[in-house]
Amino acid sequence: MKRNLLFLVVLLLTFSGSLCFAQTDQKTVKEDFKPASTNQPGKEYPQVNSEGRVRAQISAPEAHKVQLDISAVKYDLVKDENGVWTGDSDRQDEGFHYYQLWVDGAAVPDPRSKYFYGASRWGSGIEIPAKDQEFYALKNVPHGQIVEKLYYSKTNYSIRRCFVYTPPDYETNTLKRYPVLYLQHGGGEDETGWTNQGKTGLIMDNLIADGKAKPFIIVMDNGAWRWPENVPRPKPGERPAPGSWPPKGWADGFTKTLLQDIIPMIDTNFRTLADQQHRAMSGLSMGGMQTKIITLSTPDVFSYVGLFSGGSITVEDVENSPEFKDKVKLLFVSYGSRELDENGETRFGGNPKADIEALKNIGIDSHYYVSPLTAHEWQSWRRSLHEFAQLIFNE
Amino acid sequence: MKRNLLFLVVLLLTFSGSLCFAQTDQKTVKEDFKPASTNQPGKEYPQVNSEGRVRAQISAPEAHKVQLDISAVKYDLVKDENGVWTGDSDRQDEGFHYYQLWVDGAAVPDPRSKYFYGASRWGSGIEIPAKDQEFYALKNVPHGQIVEKLYYSKTNYSIRRCFVYTPPDYETNTLKRYPVLYLQHGGGEDETGWTNQGKTGLIMDNLIADGKAKPFIIVMDNGAWRWPENVPRPKPGERPAPGSWPPKGWADGFTKTLLQDIIPMIDTNFRTLADQQHRAMSGLSMGGMQTKIITLSTPDVFSYVGLFSGGSITVEDVENSPEFKDKVKLLFVSYGSRELDENGETRFGGNPKADIEALKNIGIDSHYYVSPLTAHEWQSWRRSLHEFAQLIFNE
Repeated sequence: MKRNLLFLVVLLLTFSGSLCFAQTDQKTVKEDFKPASTNQPGKEYPQVNSEGRVRAQISAPEAHKVQLDISAVKYDLVKDENGVWTGDSDRQDEGFHYYQLWVDGAAVPDPRSKYFYGASRWGSGIEIPAKDQEFYALKNVPHGQIVEKLYYSKTNYSIRRCFVYTPPDYETNTLKRYPVLYLQHGGGEDETGWTNQGKTGLIMDNLIADGKAKPFIIVMDNGAWRWPENVPRPKPGERPAPGSWPPKGWADGFTKTLLQDIIPMIDTNFRTLADQQHRAMSGLSMGGMQTKIITLSTPDVFSYVGLFSGGSITVEDVENSPEFKDKVKLLFVSYGSRELDENGETRFGGNPKADIEALKNIGIDSHYYVSPLTAHEWQSWRRSLHEFAQLIFNE
Repeated sequence: MKRNLLFLVVLLLTFSGSLCFAQTDQKTVKEDFKPASTNQPGKEYPQVNSEGRVRAQISAPEAHKVQLDISAVKYDLVKDENGVWTGDSDRQDEGFHYYQLWVDGAAVPDPRSKYFYGASRWGSGIEIPAKDQEFYALKNVPHGQIVEKLYYSKTNYSIRRCFVYTPPDYETNTLKRYPVLYLQHGGGEDETGWTNQGKTGLIMDNLIADGKAKPFIIVMDNGAWRWPENVPRPKPGERPAPGSWPPKGWADGFTKTLLQDIIPMIDTNFRTLADQQHRAMSGLSMGGMQTKIITLSTPDVFSYVGLFSGGSITVEDVENSPEFKDKVKLLFVSYGSRELDENGETRFGGNPKADIEALKNIGIDSHYYVSPLTAHEWQSWRRSLHEFAQLIFNE
C-alpha cells in the first residue's frame, strides 16, 4: 500500500517545481491554432493547434521576460512592437492541464483562461482536444443537475460543502430512488474538481442518454487532510524515507466524516437506495488511496470500488479484510499509460494489472483499465469514470 | 426610461477606464490588516484593515512597476529586498469589489484571490467586511441548495445554463410547491454573479431561519445580450447621444427566452406554484432594466417587481401599461446612496423616491430603499435582495 500512497506527495510537489526551461522549435509548428474551449467567453487566447501545442499571449508592454509554464516546462514568449508577448509550448497530451504565466518573476494566472482548483490553488487550466472528447461533450440530451449542498459536520464542528450530481429524471420521476457513488478528488484539489475539470455531469448525461450506464447519484465532497502535528514533514524536494509516508492515520478524519456525516446527510436529503448494495466509492490519486483504505475497512458500506491512479488492491489486502471478498461486488483499478513503465509497473513499484489478474483468480469481479497516452492527469480520470460508471449498479 | 438605461453603458465602461494614479498616505494607515475572506484557502494576502483599506502583495523579483487597481484607482506597490511587492489602497466602501494587479504593464488577476465573473471577465474580487455582514454570513442554520441546471433553449437553439436556489425544506418536504423569483445580474456579469458575489443562498437561508421571508425558489439565468448589428455603437469613451441608447429592442431576446424557455423549464423541473400570483422578477442594473421592460409588458406573468440600481417606474409608465396597476401586487425600487445626488436624483436625472411616492398615491404598493454609503456595487444589491425578499409572497 505504501508504494501507491507515494503518488500523493509527488502530486503535491509537482506544481511547485517547474524545473526546466525550453524554447519550442518554431519551424515545425502547424499554424492551425484555435481558441481553447477553456477560455473565458469571447477571449481569443490561449490557443491550441492540431498537434496539441499551446500558444499563449499577454499584453505586458513594460515587461522584460514573459513565460508560459505548462506540464512543468517554461517556454519563453516573444514581445512584438505593441508590447504583446506570444509563444508556443511543445506538444501536450490530450485532455486538461493546469498552467500559469510568469511576468518578470511573478507567477500569475492567464487573465483570459477560466480558473480551476488544483495544485492547491485556483488558477488557469487549458483543454487540449482529445480524439475521444465526444464522451464528455455538451450535447442536446437530457441533463442532470449539479447541486451545491452546505451541511453541518458533527465530526469536525464546521459547515462543509459538497456537490451532488442527480440524473436527468431525478426531478420529474419523484418517487424513484437511486444508487449513490461517492467520488473523491486528488491531493491539492477540492470538491469542485470532478464537476469542473472532471466533466462528471456531461460524462454521466451522455452515458445515460446512450443507455450505457444506470442513472445514479454522485456525491463529490472534500477529502483534504492536514498533516498530523506530531509527525515530521519531509523536507521540500526530498522524497520521504520508505515507510515514513504517508503518516499513519492520515485518512482517519475523512473516513469518519464520510461515514458519520456525509452518507447520513445524503440519505436524508436525496432519494437514495440507502444500503450497501447500492453504494459505490471511487477516487483519483489521493482519493483512490482513501477509497482503498475506507472500502477495505468497511466492506459492509460499499459494494463497488474504483481506484483511478490511486494505487491497487492485492490478494494480501483482501485476505486481511475477509468480508471484502464476500461483500464487494466489483473492483476497478486504472492508470494513465504514462504512469506505467514498460513492464506495466507503476513508478513506485507494483503491477496493478497482475494484482487484478490475481484477484480475478480468487473470484473477485475485478477490472483493469489503462488510459492511452495520458499521465497523472484529468484525461485519465475522465476516462476512468466513463469506464467505471458503465460497470456499476447493473445488478 | 432612457435616462435609467444609461447606467448600463457606464457600468460597461467603468472597468476598462482606470484613470487616476494614487499613492496612499501611509501615515494614517491602521496596522490591523487581516486576510480577506475572499482569499483562496490558506492565502495570507490580500488583506483588509478596519478602515477598509486593501493591502495587496505579490512576488515579482524582476519587475519594475507593480500596482493594485481597485475602484478605478491604481496604487503603486513597493518592492522589498526579496522581490516581494506590497502596497495599500485608500479606504474602500463596505462590501464586494472587483480588482486586479498590474505587473510591468500586464493586467492580471491576483494569484491569491478567488475569482468572480464581472466587468466582462473572470478576475479577482475582494470583500471589505461590512457592519451588517451578519445577514449574509455562513451560519449553522438549515441551508437550501444551489442547483446548476442545463437546458435546451428553443428560442436561440443552444444549451443554456441557470442556477436555481431551492429553500432548505425543498428536498424533505416533497409534496410542497413554492413561489418563484426570477433574479437577474447586471451588464458584464453572468448567471454566476448572484450566487457567488451576491450571496443569494446565504441571504435566503438566514432570512428563512429567522422567519423573515417565506421559502421560495430563485432562478438566476443569463441575461446577456448582443448589440444589434444594424445599430451603430457609441465610440469608446463617448457617451451615446440622448435617445440613441440603448438600441430599441435590446431586451427582446432575453424576454422571449425567459417567457418561452426558462419559465416553462422551471415549472416542469421544480415544484413551483406556476401562476402569476406566485411569480416575481427582479434584477440589478441591466437586470433591473430588463425587469422593468418585461414586467410592464407582461403584467399577467409577474406579481412582484424589484429594480435594484436599475431605473425606476413612473406613473406615466404605469398609465401606459394599464393592467400593471391591477395585477402587480408590489413594486420595489432601490439604489446605493452614492448613486444619488443631494436631491435624491440619479446621475442621469429622475428621482426614484418621488416616483415611488407618486405610485403609492395612485394605489400601488410601492417601496423605496437606499443602501447606506454604497455605490453601484454588490453590497447595494445584497441589501436590496435582503429587503425585497421580506416583502414578497406574503399573501
